[in-house]
Amino acid sequence: MSDADEILAEHHDTVLLLTLNRPARLNAWTPTMRHRYCELLENADRDPAVRVVVLTGAGNGFCAGSDITALQPDGLLPGQDARHRLALSMRLRKPVISAINGTASGAGLAAALFTDIRFTTPGASLTTAFSRAELVAEHGIAWLLPRLVGLGRAMDLLLAARKMTGMQAHALGLVDRVFSGEEMLARTMDYARTLARERSPAAMATIKQQVYSGLEAGTEIVASEAHNRMMAALRGSGRTEPARGARHRGEPYFPPLD
Amino acid sequence: MSDADEILAEHHDTVLLLTLNRPARLNAWTPTMRHRYCELLENADRDPAVRVVVLTGAGNGFCAGSDITALQPDGLLPGQDARHRLALSMRLRKPVISAINGTASGAGLAAALFTDIRFTTPGASLTTAFSRAELVAEHGIAWLLPRLVGLGRAMDLLLAARKMTGMQAHALGLVDRVFSGEEMLARTMDYARTLARERSPAAMATIKQQVYSGLEAGTEIVASEAHNRMMAALRGSGRTEPARGARHRGEPYFPPLD
Amino acid sequence: MSDADEILAEHHDTVLLLTLNRPARLNAWTPTMRHRYCELLENADRDPAVRVVVLTGAGNGFCAGSDITALQPDGLLPGQDARHRLALSMRLRKPVISAINGTASGAGLAAALFTDIRFTTPGASLTTAFSRAELVAEHGIAWLLPRLVGLGRAMDLLLAARKMTGMQAHALGLVDRVFSGEEMLARTMDYARTLARERSPAAMATIKQQVYSGLEAGTEIVASEAHNRMMAALRGSGRTEPARGARHRGEPYFPPLD
Repeated sequence: MSDADEILAEHHDTVLLLTLNRPARLNAWTPTMRHRYCELLENADRDPAVRVVVLTGAGNGFCAGSDITALQPDGLLPGQDARHRLALSMRLRKPVISAINGTASGAGLAAALFTDIRFTTPGASLTTAFSRAELVAEHGIAWLLPRLVGLGRAMDLLLAARKMTGMQAHALGLVDRVFSGEEMLARTMDYARTLARERSPAAMATIKQQVYSGLEAGTEIVASEAHNRMMAALRGSGRTEPARGARHRGEPYFPPLD
Repeated sequence: MSDADEILAEHHDTVLLLTLNRPARLNAWTPTMRHRYCELLENADRDPAVRVVVLTGAGNGFCAGSDITALQPDGLLPGQDARHRLALSMRLRKPVISAINGTASGAGLAAALFTDIRFTTPGASLTTAFSRAELVAEHGIAWLLPRLVGLGRAMDLLLAARKMTGMQAHALGLVDRVFSGEEMLARTMDYARTLARERSPAAMATIKQQVYSGLEAGTEIVASEAHNRMMAALRGSGRTEPARGARHRGEPYFPPLD
Repeated sequence: MSDADEILAEHHDTVLLLTLNRPARLNAWTPTMRHRYCELLENADRDPAVRVVVLTGAGNGFCAGSDITALQPDGLLPGQDARHRLALSMRLRKPVISAINGTASGAGLAAALFTDIRFTTPGASLTTAFSRAELVAEHGIAWLLPRLVGLGRAMDLLLAARKMTGMQAHALGLVDRVFSGEEMLARTMDYARTLARERSPAAMATIKQQVYSGLEAGTEIVASEAHNRMMAALRGSGRTEPARGARHRGEPYFPPLD
């Protein structure tokens, strides 16, 4: 199997579906697979034919973490630029959505948490895993979890490293929707297609940048910056009112990102 | 209709009820109306007869965003000082409570989110709206939403811009209480009156300042600052124990803010 | 009663159970008791025989705040180093868990909120209390609450200072689990023993430091820092894969902290 086959990439109209594809190892990360994931995301960001990315796993699992047999200091750090691999999805201009089809643990859970939105099934098994294995909360997950579910719940999930079902994860706010196993991927693709067709790529790119940079900013800076952005959006376009999206055969139409 | 009539202001004892009053346009913001809102809030903050502000909408809606027919770059920005209009409520010393009686979308939702506490009805319709219209998440809402409902839910609400019912908004933590349409405003006013009569204006002013400035601060600074504030409160008053509020005919009594 | 008796300390294997012990005053804090609490936590952090700390209250209450009869500026501030007493638990390397067996109000609620994880009973009564008494949100609770339950809920809890049941507090994410009164402490001790026996003390210490320092950090810094920590953990140990914990009679075994 070539490195490329460790992640399958399929275009469904303007939605790119990435499938982690090492089902015999519950799709656990290898260094080459992380590298490939990064490459696919960066390509997607540059490709005008892609508007939304969906991430899922082949077989019964989503991603069981880092493959122990592949995890070595040298393997894990091929270069400085590979450092923030799993967090890369946050820096994309395009939405990335996780369809968590089964087990997501450790670095597998981290990958899902760093995407913008998460759907899963009632019976999926999610766990941080790290404290069971004398590992730190890698990839910035200790930074991210309190911002997703609140400080107390994050601490419980990280210290106890218990397994949650998809239903429990939804109740905590860790995943955004729960669908039965048979329809979960289809429903995620429907959601992705709605974003791709009926939402403005420019607005979504700006919103991602606003939300993630806003996590670090104070009230004054952000309110002022948001105002300036809106002014720029209105002036730059020569418009005197916001685009509602052109209509194309009765559907909203938005141009892709450059 | 004069500009003043775009927002009705009624004093109910020490609670000021502001009603957005363009029901034919679902109370959508005009530039003059935003200006008037700002002015009313600033006056309320200075007026010792006002202890709590309640914000609601006339007719079937709360606020349907910015009135497209009125939204123009020049109109939106009459001056530098008008920049943070909707966020102004956060900087008031007095609690501001939203009674979301119906549709709240875009800049209408932002207005409610920037108040301190939100009540609504089961059937109210709330949406961020921005991504449907090639608009950015204006007014700092991209900064605020993750702090209200967590990062994943915020991203879902901003990117998909779906409509939530009041019940759904409550489940996400976006609104604090849900009451039936007939009694919602009355229950909000009851809550406001309790704050006005039985809670310390000085404590509430300090709490607002602590909470909002605390969003930007680190652990050490805040713990130290909170301690210093308490010491100052105890020493400055010459008290050796905290005031429980004087009793007036069996009710707690607190003096107003200067 | 000596000062030491104001807090009982019992070792249950490697779990240290601290019991606030002024039941006639609902275990309200006195200055000496706060000092003793601090001392016990610091000792626990240094003691290799302690892996997890549990905090509960004697009798029907958890902690009813600061004892008014003991609260004086001089008493509250014996020295600069005593400043962040209740927040001290956050700086410990070892998990601290609250078993909230009854009333927790004001500085009593703050003590519980500054521990890492909270369990309670359905009928426990929790309240911030401060705004009823012309007090500020002391001890950094105004900083902490929005990070535990979100901004809107925090503002409601702080301004209205209403009493919540344990069930309501759980629904808000303020406490992590609810158990019946009879079994709550036993279940908390079970949870503590699991952390003590089957989770890595080194990983838990790092996770606590990562989570709390991460509240103040930005995305880039944390992702980079987490990566460096993991590299250091792997390299420093000379291991090429993470420890899964040695096995001792079929159970995972982790060494204590130095």
